[in-house]
Amino acid sequence: MDREKILERAEELKEELISIRRDIHAYPEVGLQEERTSKIVAQKLRQLGYKVQTKVGITGVVGLLEGRYPGKTILLRADMDCLKMMELNQHIYKSKHDGLMHACGHDAHTAWLIGAAMILASYKDQLYGNVKFVFQPAEETDGGAKRMIADGVLKNPDVDIALAAHVWPSIESGKIGIKTGTMMAALNNFKVTVYGKGGHGAEPHFCIDPISVSCQIYMALQTIISRRINPVEPAVISIGEFHGGAAHNVIPDKVIMEGTVRTTTEESRKKIHQMIETIIKGITEAHGASYSLEYNEDYSPVINDEEITKLVEEVGISILGEKNVLNIQEPTMGGEDFAYFQQKVPGAFFVVGTNNPHKGIDKPLHSPYFDIDEDILPIASAVFAGCVLQYLNKMKNSLNEGVEQ
Amino acid sequence: MDREKILERAEELKEELISIRRDIHAYPEVGLQEERTSKIVAQKLRQLGYKVQTKVGITGVVGLLEGRYPGKTILLRADMDCLKMMELNQHIYKSKHDGLMHACGHDAHTAWLIGAAMILASYKDQLYGNVKFVFQPAEETDGGAKRMIADGVLKNPDVDIALAAHVWPSIESGKIGIKTGTMMAALNNFKVTVYGKGGHGAEPHFCIDPISVSCQIYMALQTIISRRINPVEPAVISIGEFHGGAAHNVIPDKVIMEGTVRTTTEESRKKIHQMIETIIKGITEAHGASYSLEYNEDYSPVINDEEITKLVEEVGISILGEKNVLNIQEPTMGGEDFAYFQQKVPGAFFVVGTNNPHKGIDKPLHSPYFDIDEDILPIASAVFAGCVLQYLNKMKNSLNEGVEQ
Amino acid sequence: MDREKILERAEELKEELISIRRDIHAYPEVGLQEERTSKIVAQKLRQLGYKVQTKVGITGVVGLLEGRYPGKTILLRADMDCLKMMELNQHIYKSKHDGLMHACGHDAHTAWLIGAAMILASYKDQLYGNVKFVFQPAEETDGGAKRMIADGVLKNPDVDIALAAHVWPSIESGKIGIKTGTMMAALNNFKVTVYGKGGHGAEPHFCIDPISVSCQIYMALQTIISRRINPVEPAVISIGEFHGGAAHNVIPDKVIMEGTVRTTTEESRKKIHQMIETIIKGITEAHGASYSLEYNEDYSPVINDEEITKLVEEVGISILGEKNVLNIQEPTMGGEDFAYFQQKVPGAFFVVGTNNPHKGIDKPLHSPYFDIDEDILPIASAVFAGCVLQYLNKMKNSLNEGVEQ
Amino acid sequence: MDREKILERAEELKEELISIRRDIHAYPEVGLQEERTSKIVAQKLRQLGYKVQTKVGITGVVGLLEGRYPGKTILLRADMDCLKMMELNQHIYKSKHDGLMHACGHDAHTAWLIGAAMILASYKDQLYGNVKFVFQPAEETDGGAKRMIADGVLKNPDVDIALAAHVWPSIESGKIGIKTGTMMAALNNFKVTVYGKGGHGAEPHFCIDPISVSCQIYMALQTIISRRINPVEPAVISIGEFHGGAAHNVIPDKVIMEGTVRTTTEESRKKIHQMIETIIKGITEAHGASYSLEYNEDYSPVINDEEITKLVEEVGISILGEKNVLNIQEPTMGGEDFAYFQQKVPGAFFVVGTNNPHKGIDKPLHSPYFDIDEDILPIASAVFAGCVLQYLNKMKNSLNEGVEQ
Repeated sequence: MDREKILERAEELKEELISIRRDIHAYPEVGLQEERTSKIVAQKLRQLGYKVQTKVGITGVVGLLEGRYPGKTILLRADMDCLKMMELNQHIYKSKHDGLMHACGHDAHTAWLIGAAMILASYKDQLYGNVKFVFQPAEETDGGAKRMIADGVLKNPDVDIALAAHVWPSIESGKIGIKTGTMMAALNNFKVTVYGKGGHGAEPHFCIDPISVSCQIYMALQTIISRRINPVEPAVISIGEFHGGAAHNVIPDKVIMEGTVRTTTEESRKKIHQMIETIIKGITEAHGASYSLEYNEDYSPVINDEEITKLVEEVGISILGEKNVLNIQEPTMGGEDFAYFQQKVPGAFFVVGTNNPHKGIDKPLHSPYFDIDEDILPIASAVFAGCVLQYLNKMKNSLNEGVEQ
Repeated sequence: MDREKILERAEELKEELISIRRDIHAYPEVGLQEERTSKIVAQKLRQLGYKVQTKVGITGVVGLLEGRYPGKTILLRADMDCLKMMELNQHIYKSKHDGLMHACGHDAHTAWLIGAAMILASYKDQLYGNVKFVFQPAEETDGGAKRMIADGVLKNPDVDIALAAHVWPSIESGKIGIKTGTMMAALNNFKVTVYGKGGHGAEPHFCIDPISVSCQIYMALQTIISRRINPVEPAVISIGEFHGGAAHNVIPDKVIMEGTVRTTTEESRKKIHQMIETIIKGITEAHGASYSLEYNEDYSPVINDEEITKLVEEVGISILGEKNVLNIQEPTMGGEDFAYFQQKVPGAFFVVGTNNPHKGIDKPLHSPYFDIDEDILPIASAVFAGCVLQYLNKMKNSLNEGVEQ
Repeated sequence: MDREKILERAEELKEELISIRRDIHAYPEVGLQEERTSKIVAQKLRQLGYKVQTKVGITGVVGLLEGRYPGKTILLRADMDCLKMMELNQHIYKSKHDGLMHACGHDAHTAWLIGAAMILASYKDQLYGNVKFVFQPAEETDGGAKRMIADGVLKNPDVDIALAAHVWPSIESGKIGIKTGTMMAALNNFKVTVYGKGGHGAEPHFCIDPISVSCQIYMALQTIISRRINPVEPAVISIGEFHGGAAHNVIPDKVIMEGTVRTTTEESRKKIHQMIETIIKGITEAHGASYSLEYNEDYSPVINDEEITKLVEEVGISILGEKNVLNIQEPTMGGEDFAYFQQKVPGAFFVVGTNNPHKGIDKPLHSPYFDIDEDILPIASAVFAGCVLQYLNKMKNSLNEGVEQ
Repeated sequence: MDREKILERAEELKEELISIRRDIHAYPEVGLQEERTSKIVAQKLRQLGYKVQTKVGITGVVGLLEGRYPGKTILLRADMDCLKMMELNQHIYKSKHDGLMHACGHDAHTAWLIGAAMILASYKDQLYGNVKFVFQPAEETDGGAKRMIADGVLKNPDVDIALAAHVWPSIESGKIGIKTGTMMAALNNFKVTVYGKGGHGAEPHFCIDPISVSCQIYMALQTIISRRINPVEPAVISIGEFHGGAAHNVIPDKVIMEGTVRTTTEESRKKIHQMIETIIKGITEAHGASYSLEYNEDYSPVINDEEITKLVEEVGISILGEKNVLNIQEPTMGGEDFAYFQQKVPGAFFVVGTNNPHKGIDKPLHSPYFDIDEDILPIASAVFAGCVLQYLNKMKNSLNEGVEQ
C-alpha cells in the first residue's frame, strides 16, 4: 500500500468533500426519507464508474467496485440520516430544514465514504477483490442496517469483512480511536405514558396530576444507576423527552416520557427493564395514576473483531503516525446498528477525532451546536481506502501463497 | 317580578338554548378569535331588536336593551372563548376544531345570556332603565374584560351594577351558589425556561440535563405549598405544561414549564413569586444550569358586593326555592377577569351547579371529558332575567319614592 | 368584678410568678414524670389553703377553692410537661436537664395559673361556687387530660365550665386572642419504618437503600398537601423525625420517620391517612423495599363554646382594654388535649400574646430558642381570675334571681 | 514449600481458629479501643514464641518471627476493629456488645492471621528472613495503618513486602480472588449539616424545614452518579446516615447526613467533591437554609504490585487448585487502609471467598446479618503461610545464587 500517495490524493479532495458534506448538512433528511442525499450519493458513485443499486433498505445506496482480479469483498459503510432537532448554529451551511439537523455527523460519514470511493476508483485495475460502498438509511431511528441486510447487501458478491467509522468529539482532530471487543453498548428504548386525571389548575384535588407523578418517576429512575447497578458496570438511563400539558392553567390527563437505556451486559439489560417497570408501577400506584410502557430492545453491542481491529490500527499508524492512533480503554455507551453487520461478518468500527477547540469545535454529539472539524474528512477517507488496499492486498498475497504452495 | 312567568318562559326556550350551546360547542374559538361565535350572538341580539355593537375589545359584542322608562343600567356578562385542548368526548356536538374545546363552559355562558336577552325582550315596554348584554372575548387568556372596558363598555349609558355567572361542576344541577366578599382568587402565571447543555443520551457527563434539573425544581416547588405557606391560607401552584426534548436519545438543551399561582392575599402573591424564583435559582445553580423566568400578575380577586349578592340570593330563592341557593363558605382558587368589571362598578359573580351523575355529568372544569347538564341553561337565563327585573324595578320604586317625597 | 384591683394584685405578684416560671423552666420534666413540678404546685396550693389532690392522672395536681356560698364550679387548667429538645438559649434559667426543654410555654402556663390561685385566694369569702385549679401532665405526649378526667377531675364537685390558655408567639405581648368555634386542629401522629436491605456503602447494588426510598416517600408526601387536598381547606403534614443509619459507609437496614397530621375536617383526616399509606406502599414496592406504618388519631379539635368565648372576651376587654383582645379569624393547626375537657363540659381556650421583638422574644413554639416575655404572666393570671369572678358572680345573680322569682 | 503439609496443618487448627474467631466476634471493639482483642492476639503470639510489641498505633500488636537465617522481611496484616452496628443474627456467638458488630469480617482476619502464625511457628528453624504479623486497629474509622507506620512497624527489621486479605461474600467459599493494579477504590467521607429553622410541626410557615431540604439534597446527589459522571467510570456516593429531629411534631433546626464517596480516578474524586458542595449550596439557598460541609479525602486506592500478585496467585493455585483462584476483572468500590502500607512497600491484597448458600451464608459486608463460612479460616491461614515460605525461600535462593555467583 502506498500510504503517502493515498493521503496526498485524499487531501486533494478536501475542498470537494467539504462541499459535499455542507450540501448534505444544509438539507438533512430523517431515516428512510434520505431521498435527496441518496440521489447525490448514487450520482457520484455512478460518475466514478461503480455499479450502483438504489432503494436497498428503502433509501439505501450501494456502489460496487469490482477489482480487476478475483479476491475478497470488503464492505465500507456510512449512514445518511439526520436527527429531528433544531440546529442552533449560524454558519452558512446551517440546516435549511426546520427541526432537522445533522447533529450526529452522518453528513461527514457520507462525505468521507464518497472520498474513499473517489480514492479507490484509481486503484480498480490493480485490485484483487471487491469493495462495497454502503450508504445506509435510518441509523438513528429504524436500524436501516437490518433492512439493507434483508435486501441482500451482504450477498452477491458475499461480503467478507465490514468497516465503519464515526466522528468523535472527545478525541482531538487528526487522531482516530479503536478498540478490540465491545466498543459500543447494547441499546434499548422506552416510552412511558403516565395517565392521571386532568382538570383545572385551581382544583388539583379533583385531579391526579401526571406531571407530579412523572417528576417523581424521573427522580426514582435516577436511583437505578446510582443505587441498584454495580458501580463498576457501565450503564446509562437517559430520558430525552418529557412532555405533558397544553395550557399553563390546566392539569393534563397524561405525560409522555421517552428514553434510552444502555448497558454492556445482557443481564443488566433485563434487570434494568424490570426495575424501570417496577418503579413506574409503584409510583403511579402511590398516587392513584396508571401507565403504559413500551420497552424495546434495540441495537446489540458493537463488538470489534480482533484481527480487523488490528488491520485498522496498522493502517491508521501507517497513514497518521503512531501517536494519532489511540487505543480506547472503555466501551462507549453509544450504540450503532453497524452491530447487525458484525453479527453476520467480522468487522471493526472505529472513531475519528473531531475535537478542535481552536476552531470552537467542542460540542458533543446531538448538541444543537454540534459541528465538525472538516479537516478530518480526507483523513477518514484515506484510512478507509488504506484498509481496503491493505486487506485485499494481503488476501491477494495469501491467495497467491495459497496458489503457489 | 313575576317569577313564575319568567321560569316558564325560560323553559320554553330550552331546546333553542341547547341548540345554540351545541352549535357554539362544536365550533370553539380561542380568545380574540371568536369570529363565528360573536356573529351568532350579534345576529341573535339584532333579531331581538337590541342596539348591537360589535368588535368591542376586538371580538366582543354588546347588546343594549333600552327600557321604556328612565332608570339604572345593569350589565350582564358572558364569556365566549374556548381552551386549547383536545376534546375526548364522543357526543355528536363534539368539537370540530381539533385541539380546541369548550371545557370551561363558556358555550353555556353565551347560550344562557342569549336566553336572558330573549326573556327580557318582552319586558322592554315596562322596564325602568337599561340592560347591557355583554359577550366578552378571551376570558381564559388575555383578560378580554379589560379590553371591553377600555373600549367603553361601562359608559353610555353608564353601568350601575354588573352580574356574571359560571357553570359549576361540584354543585348539583338545579342549584346556584353565591358568596359575599372574596369569591375567587388572585391569579398569576409564570413560564420558566431551564437551560442545560444538550448532547447525546449516552453521554450525560458531557451535558447538563435540563429534564433532571426541572424535575427537581418541580418537586421543590411543591414544598412552597406544603412547607412555606400558612396552612390556613388558601394557595395553589399548578404547573400545567412541562416540555423538554425532541428525541428519546438526545438530552435537550432546555425545558419549559408553565404554571399558575393562585392566592387570596396580596402578601402571599408576592411571597410565592419570590420563593419560586429563589428555588429555581438555587436548583439551577446546584447543577450548573441556568434559567429565565417570566412571572405575570394576572386577574385580581373576584370580590362580590354585599348588596348585589343579596339581590342574587333573593331572586335565586324566589325562582329556584330556598334549598337550591347555596351559601358558599370558602373562596374558590379559580380566577375570573370579571374582577375588572368589579373594580369599576359593584357586582356579583355566582355559580350555576351542573353536576348530574345520573347523566354521567361529573367531570371537573378543564377536563377533556367536561360536559354540562343542559337543563341548567334556562335556569341561569331565568336568574339573570329575574335579577334585572328585580333590580330595575326596585330602583324604579326608589325613583318614584324619590319623586313622591 | 373589681378589675382594677385584680390587675393591680396580679402585677404585685409578677416577680414571684417569674421566679416560679424560671424555676420550672430550669428543671423541665417530660409527660407523666412531672414529679418536681407537681410538688412545687401542690405545695403552693396548700400554702394558699386549698384542698389539694395529687397523682390525679399519675402526676396531675388539683387544687379546690370552695367559695363561701354555693354556686357553679369553674375549672382552670394549666399543663406542666416539657418537650424532649435541647435548649439552645443561654440565659441563667436555661434548662439544666440535657435534652429537655420548656419550648412550648407550659412553664408559663403553670406559673400563671398559680398566679390566678394566689389572686383568688383573697376572694374566697365572697365567692359563690368553686374553682378547680387543674395542673395537668403530658399534654405533649400522652393526652394527660384524658387521664385526669378518668381519675374524676370533672366530678365532686361537678365542673360546669372549663378554661385554659396558651402562650402565643405570633401575637404581641400584652394582647390575648380568642375565637368561637374551631380554634385548633384535629391531630394525628404516625410512625413509618421503611425496611430495605443493608450492606456496605461501596456495594449499593447488593442492597435496597432505605434512605433513598425514604427521601422519595418524603417528597411524595409533600404532594398530598400541594396536589391532593382542597387548597381552601387547612391541613398540614409535618415529619419531625427522620432517622436512618449508624455509620457513614454502611447502608442501613431501615429508616424511621415520625410525623404529625393536622386537619380541620374529619373527612380529610381519613383521606390523608389513606393517601399516606398508599404512597408509602407504592414507593416501597417501586424499589423492592417494605414498610410498617403506625397511624394514630390523636387529639380532637378544640371547639370553643360561644357563650364562654364571649365571657373571656368581655373580661379580657375589661382588664386589658378593647385593642388588646383580638378576634382570631382562622383556626390554628396546633392541637390541644384541652379538647377532651371540652367534649365533657363547655369551655374556651384562649391565647396569650408573648411576641416582643424589643426583648428579642420572637421565636416560634418548639424552637430551641423559644422564650417568653415574662410580663405576660400577671396578665394571664388576671384574666383567669377575672373570668372566675365574672362567671361565678353572674351565676350568683341568676341564682338569686331564680330565688327571688 | 510443602503445600500439602501446610494445608493439612491448617485444617488441624480449624476448631481452634473458629473458637478464636467466635470469641472475638462475641466481644467486638471499635477502632483504637481493641483492648480485649489485642490482649488475646498478644498472648497467642507470645505463646508461639514470637517477639511481641503492643500499643503500636495505640492498640496495634506486632509479632516478629525471626527466621534462623538472614533474609527478607515479609509483613502479614490483619485488622481487628468492628463496626458500630447492632447485630441481628441470633447465633450463640452473637455480639454481646450492644450496638457493635464484626460485620466486616475483621474477626476472621484476626483469626486467620493467628492461624498463619501458628503454622509458621514450626518453620522457624528453616526460615531465611523474618515475618511480621501485624494486627492493626481502626481500619474502619481512623486509618490505623497510618498510625502503625508512624510508630515504626515497617522498620527494624525493614519490611520488604506486605500482604493482607479480606473475606469476600460474593465469591464462593473455598476460592480466593486476586487482581493486578487497582484493586480497591479511593475513599472519601463527608458530613453535611443542613441548618434550617425549627419550630412547631403545625406551623411550617414559620420554619425552614431541614428535613425537606435534606431529602431534596439527597435526591439531587443521586444525579451526580446518574447524570454527571462518565458511565464507564466506576464511582459511588452512599449516604449511610441521615438524622434529623427529636419529636414527631417538632420541625428540627438541622439535619446531619454522612456518607462515603468512592472513585477510581483522582480527577473524579475532585470533581465529585466540588459537585457535592455545589448541589448542597444551591439547594440550601433555594430554600433559605444554610449548611456546613466537612469533606475528607480518606484512604488512597489499593494498588497491587504485579510481582507479588503473581506470588499470591501461584501459591493460591498450588494450595487450592487452579479453579479456586479467580482473576478479578474490575476493581471493587471498597477501600482499605492497607493502601498506606502499599505506598511504602510493594504489596498485594487478596480476597477470600465466603459465600456458602447451603449454610445460609450470603449476606453482604456490613449487613446486620453478615456471617462467614468458618471453613475458610484455615484456607486463608494456609495461603498466608504458603506465601511466606515461597517468598522467603525464593529470596533465599536468590541470596544463595547471589552468594554463589
